[in-house]
Amino acid sequence: MIPKKMKAAVIHAFGEPLHIEEMAVREPRENEILVKVIACGVCHTDLHACEGDWPVKPKMPLVPGHEAIGYVVVLGHGVKNVKEGDIVGVPWLYSACGCCDYCYTGWETLCESQNNGGYSVDGGFAEYVVADSRYVAHFPSGINFAEMAPIICAGVTVYKGLKQTEAKPGEWVGISGIGGLGHLAIQYAKAMGLHVAAIDIADDKLKLAKDLGADIIVNAKEKDPGLFLKKETGGMHGMLVTAPSTTAFNQALGTLRRKGVLSLNGLPAGTFDLSIFDTVINGTTIRGSIVGTRKDMEEAIAFAVEGRVKATVKTARLEDINTVFDEMKKGDISGRMVLEIAKS
Amino acid sequence: MIPKKMKAAVIHAFGEPLHIEEMAVREPRENEILVKVIACGVCHTDLHACEGDWPVKPKMPLVPGHEAIGYVVVLGHGVKNVKEGDIVGVPWLYSACGCCDYCYTGWETLCESQNNGGYSVDGGFAEYVVADSRYVAHFPSGINFAEMAPIICAGVTVYKGLKQTEAKPGEWVGISGIGGLGHLAIQYAKAMGLHVAAIDIADDKLKLAKDLGADIIVNAKEKDPGLFLKKETGGMHGMLVTAPSTTAFNQALGTLRRKGVLSLNGLPAGTFDLSIFDTVINGTTIRGSIVGTRKDMEEAIAFAVEGRVKATVKTARLEDINTVFDEMKKGDISGRMVLEIAKS
Amino acid sequence: MIPKKMKAAVIHAFGEPLHIEEMAVREPRENEILVKVIACGVCHTDLHACEGDWPVKPKMPLVPGHEAIGYVVVLGHGVKNVKEGDIVGVPWLYSACGCCDYCYTGWETLCESQNNGGYSVDGGFAEYVVADSRYVAHFPSGINFAEMAPIICAGVTVYKGLKQTEAKPGEWVGISGIGGLGHLAIQYAKAMGLHVAAIDIADDKLKLAKDLGADIIVNAKEKDPGLFLKKETGGMHGMLVTAPSTTAFNQALGTLRRKGVLSLNGLPAGTFDLSIFDTVINGTTIRGSIVGTRKDMEEAIAFAVEGRVKATVKTARLEDINTVFDEMKKGDISGRMVLEIAKS
Amino acid sequence: MIPKKMKAAVIHAFGEPLHIEEMAVREPRENEILVKVIACGVCHTDLHACEGDWPVKPKMPLVPGHEAIGYVVVLGHGVKNVKEGDIVGVPWLYSACGCCDYCYTGWETLCESQNNGGYSVDGGFAEYVVADSRYVAHFPSGINFAEMAPIICAGVTVYKGLKQTEAKPGEWVGISGIGGLGHLAIQYAKAMGLHVAAIDIADDKLKLAKDLGADIIVNAKEKDPGLFLKKETGGMHGMLVTAPSTTAFNQALGTLRRKGVLSLNGLPAGTFDLSIFDTVINGTTIRGSIVGTRKDMEEAIAFAVEGRVKATVKTARLEDINTVFDEMKKGDISGRMVLEIAKS
Repeated sequence: MIPKKMKAAVIHAFGEPLHIEEMAVREPRENEILVKVIACGVCHTDLHACEGDWPVKPKMPLVPGHEAIGYVVVLGHGVKNVKEGDIVGVPWLYSACGCCDYCYTGWETLCESQNNGGYSVDGGFAEYVVADSRYVAHFPSGINFAEMAPIICAGVTVYKGLKQTEAKPGEWVGISGIGGLGHLAIQYAKAMGLHVAAIDIADDKLKLAKDLGADIIVNAKEKDPGLFLKKETGGMHGMLVTAPSTTAFNQALGTLRRKGVLSLNGLPAGTFDLSIFDTVINGTTIRGSIVGTRKDMEEAIAFAVEGRVKATVKTARLEDINTVFDEMKKGDISGRMVLEIAKS
Repeated sequence: MIPKKMKAAVIHAFGEPLHIEEMAVREPRENEILVKVIACGVCHTDLHACEGDWPVKPKMPLVPGHEAIGYVVVLGHGVKNVKEGDIVGVPWLYSACGCCDYCYTGWETLCESQNNGGYSVDGGFAEYVVADSRYVAHFPSGINFAEMAPIICAGVTVYKGLKQTEAKPGEWVGISGIGGLGHLAIQYAKAMGLHVAAIDIADDKLKLAKDLGADIIVNAKEKDPGLFLKKETGGMHGMLVTAPSTTAFNQALGTLRRKGVLSLNGLPAGTFDLSIFDTVINGTTIRGSIVGTRKDMEEAIAFAVEGRVKATVKTARLEDINTVFDEMKKGDISGRMVLEIAKS
Repeated sequence: MIPKKMKAAVIHAFGEPLHIEEMAVREPRENEILVKVIACGVCHTDLHACEGDWPVKPKMPLVPGHEAIGYVVVLGHGVKNVKEGDIVGVPWLYSACGCCDYCYTGWETLCESQNNGGYSVDGGFAEYVVADSRYVAHFPSGINFAEMAPIICAGVTVYKGLKQTEAKPGEWVGISGIGGLGHLAIQYAKAMGLHVAAIDIADDKLKLAKDLGADIIVNAKEKDPGLFLKKETGGMHGMLVTAPSTTAFNQALGTLRRKGVLSLNGLPAGTFDLSIFDTVINGTTIRGSIVGTRKDMEEAIAFAVEGRVKATVKTARLEDINTVFDEMKKGDISGRMVLEIAKS
Repeated sequence: MIPKKMKAAVIHAFGEPLHIEEMAVREPRENEILVKVIACGVCHTDLHACEGDWPVKPKMPLVPGHEAIGYVVVLGHGVKNVKEGDIVGVPWLYSACGCCDYCYTGWETLCESQNNGGYSVDGGFAEYVVADSRYVAHFPSGINFAEMAPIICAGVTVYKGLKQTEAKPGEWVGISGIGGLGHLAIQYAKAMGLHVAAIDIADDKLKLAKDLGADIIVNAKEKDPGLFLKKETGGMHGMLVTAPSTTAFNQALGTLRRKGVLSLNGLPAGTFDLSIFDTVINGTTIRGSIVGTRKDMEEAIAFAVEGRVKATVKTARLEDINTVFDEMKKGDISGRMVLEIAKS
């Protein structure tokens, strides 16, 4: 039976705090399902949504959240590929049109008619969320919900970003920035058979990188990453820039061997300055990468379920969301923050 | 018999004019051949070499020229794949090490130990040039030497640049700048089964583009290429920027559909400003591309020999080289300039 | 308004003749559309369906036909990407699940839950056909319906088969069998920038091949295609076997250079004998290819609309279908047979 | 100083036993080096060479062996990329022309002018072997020579074979036959981030497979591998058939999901029977793969040096070679046999 009411964290105007409110539960329509949320990760994108930072604005009022994980409790009409009781994730790629060049060539993440969870439709900072059954992520039973939540966005994003470097097993990939995204990227890269160089400016993060399997670490405050990595390895085949800043970007370019590929994750404002001569003479590729397709998700989750990738998480209650946002603004959070909304 | 002396255009110090001098003909060593030059194209790179514009400097004194075409007249020891009388081209990729990752994965153009014709070794502005038999371009008999010369650098460069856009037959590629490189690029793109949009700011060049097979043309002074091409075609799958300027680069980015690839040819100084947000959200790829491998050369020549690609050339004598350089500096040359050095 | 009744060619039991009957027109459901059929091509697969030749059997009774082309006359609920009056084709890939690995990686043609037009659902040998709006082919106005019909199956099949050879512009592809599929394949291969060798045993078909642009032709009765083509071209990079027979298959393998790819189109019974030693030492690839995705269709149609590919067709009336089948069984048809069902 | 004489195992006529003889040490020529052999693996190919099994015959008399590993002791003229004291391997791909389409597109293993170690030139069953410095494998110091020897052929062969399945990290690959090749393939596949299913008919080999990291094992005598693996995993993305037999081949085909790729290693006589219908409808690819390029070798060795792949070896003396061959003929050897020729 469909519950009538639910608790949710709602924002009514950009820049205002979220309010914990009682809302009506929307009934799932054709192909939709209702998901009882157990946990939902908090992503910088949620903050960008609430601040109205980007050119395309989210719906208002809005329930943010695109790392929700929970149980399917109601099936709408026509649902085929999930059943009640299944554990699913409700991702950023909430749905896509299914009929455009991107959708039918394996690039649904670039569909121009996509909906985005917790942005163009209500998301997972709530007791229940409606999802498109065809686009949810699938989890087996027996998992740790809080640890799996960040895989739904952070995990799949870096996993796809690594694929987009085109580095192959046995080759070298560099990870710039060992935070919420980077600590997952290291683990995925190792699981993919890559050699990993981790770059950061904080020794504790570099120690973590080493513990997570990085083959080589560089403190960019102490030595030039490009000179050092080229000497030790011949240079990176791929670079994943998870926390792009102009400095990080230029350092990352400097670590690449010829024909290297720099893959950009994350959506900060700003621009990068690209030397034409170097780009041409070195045959460098620079490429943006955003979240991942259902295929990427399936693989990203499989690596996590096998225990080869594990998110470092801190948990909070739904009611703590404004505090969590404050800490994110200050940069006080290491690893990923997850709202625990119900008992699994 | 090896000739003892030859006439050559030689430069002795950066920025000075070239002198027509009598020089000793060097004897071909292991794997080398001596080529009697019939014609040699003049490339902007020759000008950059003589001006010392780039970070890595050419040898001095220097005989420039990397679009030489002529007959094999002497074989050094160990030469296997050419014979006397063969028609060959002596390219920018004069030789490579054969033993590095780039050489043995099909990317010899990125070999860090390569020699470059008319730059790190003497080139084709001369009656004779020594070449590495293993790296020369191969031509059948019956060709027009002057028309084929530009294929050896300009032709293969844009052909490879087009490949590097990853646009597939039936997809759209845009060519920005319809000059010496661009007029060849349009013909290669059509021969490769691509749909072509030509962008320039001169109506006579756009008319030429249309005549050469461009499916659509845009005068960037009159309308926004991005808006126009997206409306007409959905946006470009690939863009080739042959004459990069900041304006051309930004316009080119604006014409791409999501997942589009911008390929950079040419080696101007300067940098480009790249929006991170747009690059990520659109899944854009920016990539440098320089000349081509022996495989690319073989294909680029085959298209020209079949008559599907034809360079517009003007000819001059070896003695005219300083005048030709002056005209290039002024931008007075349309098509490609070729020195006719001997009768074929 | 939805018409109530329509005329259709129906089969009630395998091996029996089709009957022209009056049937109820089915109302389009969610995402479906009703299409008024102008023309429908006849494919060998229709014959296989009516004979029950394959392990997986079609529905019975059945309206065959998967090359229907016509006008959209009624839209079901939720239809977004077509409108009344659009010209669409109703293909073999009638619909797919949209939610499996194949569907979301650009390989919907391999979806295990697909429906097939004129096989698992009623097809286009009728005045009207219901289609899934998301999977129809799209045509511009002003086309010749009868000539376009074969593109919907035969055209896209060979086009995809050519892609699957992985031959690139400038490389060589061989087409074995210059019939209904092969005569389209030659034109597609040329439009894709490939060099084409045509192999057949009938001189008139080889003459046609030459007229359609084949660069080289071989009568396999008169000389060994492998010896001849290797001498002339170095061997094929790809081979498309459109009418597989054991002889054709072995000849096709013999024409490949090392690393060559043989792509199989068509669905005859029987097996091929593959030499392990030769396959390994030559690095040969053998691959099956069936119809094409919506992306392939879009491209295949674009080439036809531009006039670069044109099907040779003969037309008949719906009432003639049994006669057409008889002629197909006898092999009396050259080019493609198309039923003209209504005036355009 | 170059030693004058050496001990070698020599065969003078097909089918005869090898003789341990004193031979002159050949002086290294242009680009060549002399290698003091520490160990040399024994491969089935050596047996095929001595029996004259293949259409192209080896030189006679012949010193077999293409898994030699040892120290560089003398440099010929022009050698650049190795120095005295380096540890190198002398592989099956003894040298290639460097100037053909295969060589310059990263497929030197298919060069038609290649020399093969211990086949067209003398190999490593000797105290010294001359090698082409440009094609040798490179090892760091501190390695176990006997354990590394099999990487030079068996290791790189299965590693390349796995690449040729095109299975990506997170996908499934099946290994058919867990012998000398298969036990290495499992380890490489795991190091490449693949999920691995091992198929054999011997429980002890399957236990070994499990110990080496196989995620799932199947005794093909007890259950149908296709049915079982499709139920458990959805089917294999790739299959590597290391010990091809008709039965193994058909079973392997049966385990593939649609779009699956079967990669063939090894060079037995005989043919396989391929169903056209199944190949087409399932979009299956069958592909031969032979040894690996220098890039493959570099990566294959790196995985071994890191300890992620370890060959199970048994050692013997050079003088035991005929006994070793007898045991190979009987199939009595598990793992790889290595001749220890000198102390490291």
